[in-house]
Amino acid sequence: MAKKTSKKESPQRGSALSKERDEKTLKKLIDLADEVAKKTFGGKDPRLEIPLRTKSNTIWESKKRILQMGDATSDRELFNLNQAKQFMQTMLHASIIRGLIDEGKTHSLRGVYYKAKHTVSGTKENTFEDQDESDPILEDLEVSLGVLREELHIFASKRGDLVGNITLVDKGDEIDCRRMGSGGYGIPSIVEPSVIQFKKCEAKFVLHVEKDTVWQRFNEDRFWEVNNCILTHGGGQPPRGVRRLLQRLNQELKLPIICLLDCDPWGHYIYSVIKQGSISLAFESSRLAIPDAKFLGVRAKDYKECDLSDAVKIDMNDNDVKRAKEIAAYPWFEGHKGWQREINTMLSNGFKMEVEALANEHTSYVTEEYVPQRLKARDWLE
Amino acid sequence: MAKKTSKKESPQRGSALSKERDEKTLKKLIDLADEVAKKTFGGKDPRLEIPLRTKSNTIWESKKRILQMGDATSDRELFNLNQAKQFMQTMLHASIIRGLIDEGKTHSLRGVYYKAKHTVSGTKENTFEDQDESDPILEDLEVSLGVLREELHIFASKRGDLVGNITLVDKGDEIDCRRMGSGGYGIPSIVEPSVIQFKKCEAKFVLHVEKDTVWQRFNEDRFWEVNNCILTHGGGQPPRGVRRLLQRLNQELKLPIICLLDCDPWGHYIYSVIKQGSISLAFESSRLAIPDAKFLGVRAKDYKECDLSDAVKIDMNDNDVKRAKEIAAYPWFEGHKGWQREINTMLSNGFKMEVEALANEHTSYVTEEYVPQRLKARDWLE
Repeated sequence: MAKKTSKKESPQRGSALSKERDEKTLKKLIDLADEVAKKTFGGKDPRLEIPLRTKSNTIWESKKRILQMGDATSDRELFNLNQAKQFMQTMLHASIIRGLIDEGKTHSLRGVYYKAKHTVSGTKENTFEDQDESDPILEDLEVSLGVLREELHIFASKRGDLVGNITLVDKGDEIDCRRMGSGGYGIPSIVEPSVIQFKKCEAKFVLHVEKDTVWQRFNEDRFWEVNNCILTHGGGQPPRGVRRLLQRLNQELKLPIICLLDCDPWGHYIYSVIKQGSISLAFESSRLAIPDAKFLGVRAKDYKECDLSDAVKIDMNDNDVKRAKEIAAYPWFEGHKGWQREINTMLSNGFKMEVEALANEHTSYVTEEYVPQRLKARDWLE
Repeated sequence: MAKKTSKKESPQRGSALSKERDEKTLKKLIDLADEVAKKTFGGKDPRLEIPLRTKSNTIWESKKRILQMGDATSDRELFNLNQAKQFMQTMLHASIIRGLIDEGKTHSLRGVYYKAKHTVSGTKENTFEDQDESDPILEDLEVSLGVLREELHIFASKRGDLVGNITLVDKGDEIDCRRMGSGGYGIPSIVEPSVIQFKKCEAKFVLHVEKDTVWQRFNEDRFWEVNNCILTHGGGQPPRGVRRLLQRLNQELKLPIICLLDCDPWGHYIYSVIKQGSISLAFESSRLAIPDAKFLGVRAKDYKECDLSDAVKIDMNDNDVKRAKEIAAYPWFEGHKGWQREINTMLSNGFKMEVEALANEHTSYVTEEYVPQRLKARDWLE
């Protein structure tokens, strides 16, 4: 009975979108297996070709303004002592994913690791020793098959909330994000169109803030209502689900994504990842990065411009200075006058500032003055 | 305009409950100030009496089955070199809280720290150097005034999601937790009756799981629908908002709180805090602890009983063993045969097990077999 119900309500059923998506992924998985089988029966050594996810194979596509993975690949062979284990791990995970698709279920990265983990019969060898071995194999499958992890029916941690002038449909449930109280809608890990559809949206932009505490302050002041927008946070560095949802809001609904992050190297790095992607996920940039994302604040000039008190200053340590210089040298910041000035001002200030510091003025200074004024003046970094 | 709207929609307006609550808190704040003023004008040294939040002043109330704060207090005097700064910090925070109540706004712990932080005029001394100085002063005020932090209009990080057979009202918005898709309702930091009211609830119990990834698995299988319950997680050690909401569901709606946590000292500790409270928040136990909470699993016996594979074992290290023995010696576990057996079995196993490990069986084993069977057999630890 339990089983029946859970299958009946499975998210993968009923939606033409998800059926089509799953068929595509399945075909790719079967092609992969066929290729290996063909080689084997043809008397050749079974092998896979895996795109290289290294810094040296990461390319800054200045035209598209995103980080992308290059063409370099490496071989993974069964009859090679150094590669045999990874070859088998890859095939094992591929078969588990096939099972998940057949079942119409999704699973966490850790759950897939446990599903795959067992002692190879007749030996004392485990298929996987820990999750650190398992996650990269799943990324190998993503890049080899050219599909999203989400399309492999695998989810990760969820973090981040959303509220604002939009109605979403999530697995058939209509969610009015204008009526989500103080708690908000918890952004899921998988936000593909097969799971989440946008219905009615009056919002003119998205304000993405770094921390949940800042989000709570903005939500309490109903910033999203006063300024006709959507308000999101990603609990620090936003997880893939949040980044992908922001990208979909940007691409499908043409909403500008405006970021309010701390004035420190960590805030700048979060912005960089939202905008251009990251080296480790360069193969997903085209589905995660938002080259148009804007950095509204906190800006290094604010200390003077907003006449802030000394209390907001947090001294930069050696590591902060080192990180700031590294970020200034990123190819997309390197030739960018605005960003060079921004980071240099922060370095010559010698201190960092957090969004919460703006509370030093008055409780709602940031929601009622700072952000609305900057928005009106279109005063941001791109 | 922005200001007007944010005031109009302020959560503190319109609700008789929150007005009454705020008046009570204000009276206590004013009484505190009056007391200090009276002493001062009476020619005595200004001083405050602060209840001691130390381990030695924490009492295990075996009858109520919660940890509570004892009667010991310490003086805080203005004309005492060691106490003058803390005395002034306490008065400063009291005045900021008064301001928040007057404004009808809430703020984060960090926001309040920034609001209070400034250089004392004519000196080079800051009121606060960092947040570690500020948070304990706010706790001092909580215990001195006998009010919740939430009643002081202060919130902390939010973490955790909820879905299930209940309708809530959150700041006037009706939230049908049966129709929250894959994302769920994000549990806020402040969940007092002035903010959140329970409306319609068919659920017969709450299943609280440790991690968001486990929660996602259960939600995908619609466990809450099949088993008529509410499903929550707290992202590891649940924050106060989640604990308080679970307690309200338990006390007001009489729902049993059933916990599904890892079989390791960390899982046992999470359960202990949910059930009995913690030393650091002993003064809040009566509003946070749930002495009736049940521990459904994962149990040390499961390795044999569920015929699990060796792959689920995670070796215990020296620190795990030490922690397990410390927890076994907690007064509420010490005389408890079931818990002594549980921890001893784990120690003699020599390994820990995670909820995700149950996926090794089949994807929905935990949602469709393990938990329903244990519930039916009422097989849990109390």
